[in-house]
Amino acid sequence: MTSTALLTDHYELTMLAAALRDGTGDRPCVFEVFARRLPDGRRYGVVAGVNRLLAAIRDFTFGEAEITQLRDHAVVDDATLEWLANYRFTGQIDGYPEGELYFPGSPILTVRASFAEGVVLETLALSILNHDSAIASAAARMVSAANGRRMIEMGSRRTHEEAAVACARAAYLAGFTATSNLEAGRRHGIPTAGTCAHAFTLLHDSEEAAFRSQVESLGADTTLLVDTYDITEGINKAVAIAGAELGAVRIDSGDLGVMARQAREQLDALGAKNTRIVVSGDLDEYSIAALRAEPVDAYGVGTSVVTGSGAPTAGMVYKLVEVDGRPVEKRSSHKESRGGWKGAVRRHKDTGTALEEVVFQAADQPEVGPHDRLLQIPLVRDGQQTDQVPTLEQSRERLRAALVSVPWEGLKLSRGEPAIPTVHLKKES
Amino acid sequence: MTSTALLTDHYELTMLAAALRDGTGDRPCVFEVFARRLPDGRRYGVVAGVNRLLAAIRDFTFGEAEITQLRDHAVVDDATLEWLANYRFTGQIDGYPEGELYFPGSPILTVRASFAEGVVLETLALSILNHDSAIASAAARMVSAANGRRMIEMGSRRTHEEAAVACARAAYLAGFTATSNLEAGRRHGIPTAGTCAHAFTLLHDSEEAAFRSQVESLGADTTLLVDTYDITEGINKAVAIAGAELGAVRIDSGDLGVMARQAREQLDALGAKNTRIVVSGDLDEYSIAALRAEPVDAYGVGTSVVTGSGAPTAGMVYKLVEVDGRPVEKRSSHKESRGGWKGAVRRHKDTGTALEEVVFQAADQPEVGPHDRLLQIPLVRDGQQTDQVPTLEQSRERLRAALVSVPWEGLKLSRGEPAIPTVHLKKES
Repeated sequence: MTSTALLTDHYELTMLAAALRDGTGDRPCVFEVFARRLPDGRRYGVVAGVNRLLAAIRDFTFGEAEITQLRDHAVVDDATLEWLANYRFTGQIDGYPEGELYFPGSPILTVRASFAEGVVLETLALSILNHDSAIASAAARMVSAANGRRMIEMGSRRTHEEAAVACARAAYLAGFTATSNLEAGRRHGIPTAGTCAHAFTLLHDSEEAAFRSQVESLGADTTLLVDTYDITEGINKAVAIAGAELGAVRIDSGDLGVMARQAREQLDALGAKNTRIVVSGDLDEYSIAALRAEPVDAYGVGTSVVTGSGAPTAGMVYKLVEVDGRPVEKRSSHKESRGGWKGAVRRHKDTGTALEEVVFQAADQPEVGPHDRLLQIPLVRDGQQTDQVPTLEQSRERLRAALVSVPWEGLKLSRGEPAIPTVHLKKES
Repeated sequence: MTSTALLTDHYELTMLAAALRDGTGDRPCVFEVFARRLPDGRRYGVVAGVNRLLAAIRDFTFGEAEITQLRDHAVVDDATLEWLANYRFTGQIDGYPEGELYFPGSPILTVRASFAEGVVLETLALSILNHDSAIASAAARMVSAANGRRMIEMGSRRTHEEAAVACARAAYLAGFTATSNLEAGRRHGIPTAGTCAHAFTLLHDSEEAAFRSQVESLGADTTLLVDTYDITEGINKAVAIAGAELGAVRIDSGDLGVMARQAREQLDALGAKNTRIVVSGDLDEYSIAALRAEPVDAYGVGTSVVTGSGAPTAGMVYKLVEVDGRPVEKRSSHKESRGGWKGAVRRHKDTGTALEEVVFQAADQPEVGPHDRLLQIPLVRDGQQTDQVPTLEQSRERLRAALVSVPWEGLKLSRGEPAIPTVHLKKES
């Protein structure tokens, strides 16, 4: 286990030190993670990272290396160091499970703990949820655009090496079929895929030699990359060498729609009717959608998915909303939070189509009808993860089902309003 | 040590397996990292991540956990697994040191090794260089815009938790003064900073109580966040409690220019003439520049720096450019590479202003004049890091000096051409 305790902003520990000193550190508090808005023009967000966060909270402990660092740099006083050395989160966490949709103001995660215990988790919670949700939200749009075709995430090289592993996970959660990232296979059990790059062809004395070697090593049911020199010749050679049992050809450059059509005709004419066509190369949700009418069997997606396709962070915040049972909120600007411990229910028509996200004060839960769904589940009780936390496969299925419930306008790729409105119920008083 | 070996794309290992099998794996090769273009409209890029990459290559070893994963999932055959179990990079690496500028086509990193040894490093090299260079490139523009004022990186919460540590490092390399990220302090020795968030004020029964507690804990030379309720009242209270020795006030919302001016007048009127003004809240290079005329002493920058301010990845590629001494290149599209093992020299006027980036074939190095600089340095020899790899502090200084050499149009924030052209010398034949 590697400690996650220093993946934290300096000010959380200075706040902690002051609060321990003046006695307010013990006050029971509620912190809430929410997004003020969706990324510009997006219709929905996808919650991701919750399970990674729960694991990171288990590893949030201050061992000798962490304490020494804080002492040597005089970040906090000795009394605070002693408190940190004994730190274990012992509070309650409820939240939207992974794969659930969220909208502006959705109470995605609610942490109930003493101020001291809760304040130190701000950065860790936001880093993980903001990153993974941004990727899953972009990936879900691509999966929608692909309309059931296979999607391979291959963006590791375009993002931080550890973020790449989390991106593979978030994309898989959103419905991608596989990833190129081997560590994501090991750590999260995600199927991995890959065959050869242009370098392999260039290494050999001829394209034929490269194809022959690949087929000998990986079998005829492999994917040959046919665009190193001339695509038409490449496809001829590929089928000549692998036979009609060739698994797939991959095209990574050029006008992919035109290329795919020509390749399909050529493959069919060569008798390779079952050979699939994989396209890659700067694809995003728009270009994936634009290829819908083309004979493409699978998409390889890189940069756009790991950078959130224009929205690399989800913009969620972690706000103190209740102290000692009284709602609190910042009041100086338009950036106000809504105070109070809150929950949410999503209302649906009897056809199953989502109608609205209703955010309520926890003490005033409205009636939950037969077509409604309470959105938070218990994630942590007295510091221990509950048995209600879904697996990655279950979350993948949850998202698939949730997207079916979105009104059809909400699935459009074009910019617009959130798919459903968020309604804030006032506290009855 | 944690192995970095699986932070790798599946296809690198399948290529390796086929190349080991057909004998081409031993061919001496040259791989080159370069960027086809700068992010849209940018004038220069900043190389970052090189030292992290060198450390990651040292940790690129296949232990039992990695081998078991690859065997269980039949990624490669047993002969390849055996080869991987003995893997140690033994080749040569030259490259631009961290803090050097780069332009389209600059040979940022050159790896000379057998195909087998070099091909497996593609993803790791690109993940680290693309991420860190994107952040450093954005951060350098912000540092330029801030014109000598203090810059605090506080974006950890807006990016993957481990990427956050690398972002803090890249921002510091680019000239930021400090980071909020405690792990970046531990791992890279970067100064950390932070005091209190709005939550600390909300936790207390009054703003006065919060300020008093903070000053008692952190001393009068602290930064009080004055915009939780009313900024004018907040500043009055801050000075009343901390006295004229108050270190700084921070304003995190509203029209920062107007607020900073009002705050300065108010502080001066209260006799707190040395109290600094820190602003934060959705700042990027443009808003930093727009605040140049205002009495701002320091900027806290979050989202924009960790997301590369619109360019979250540097778009560098890792291409095979030479096999067995002969140049190779992909030829099917506009995405062609330029084959051959290359080096680069930057030419300058005798005033020190950069003129052009000259990329040459390694065998045909042009004359290097007194004002020119060869851009690559030896990073690895026979698998061992050389003693010429600069420290983070040295790289910070290198960038500062390199930016001074950029023609003035090249430092403009507006979109435009690269600050200097890249000239490719043809191979003499």
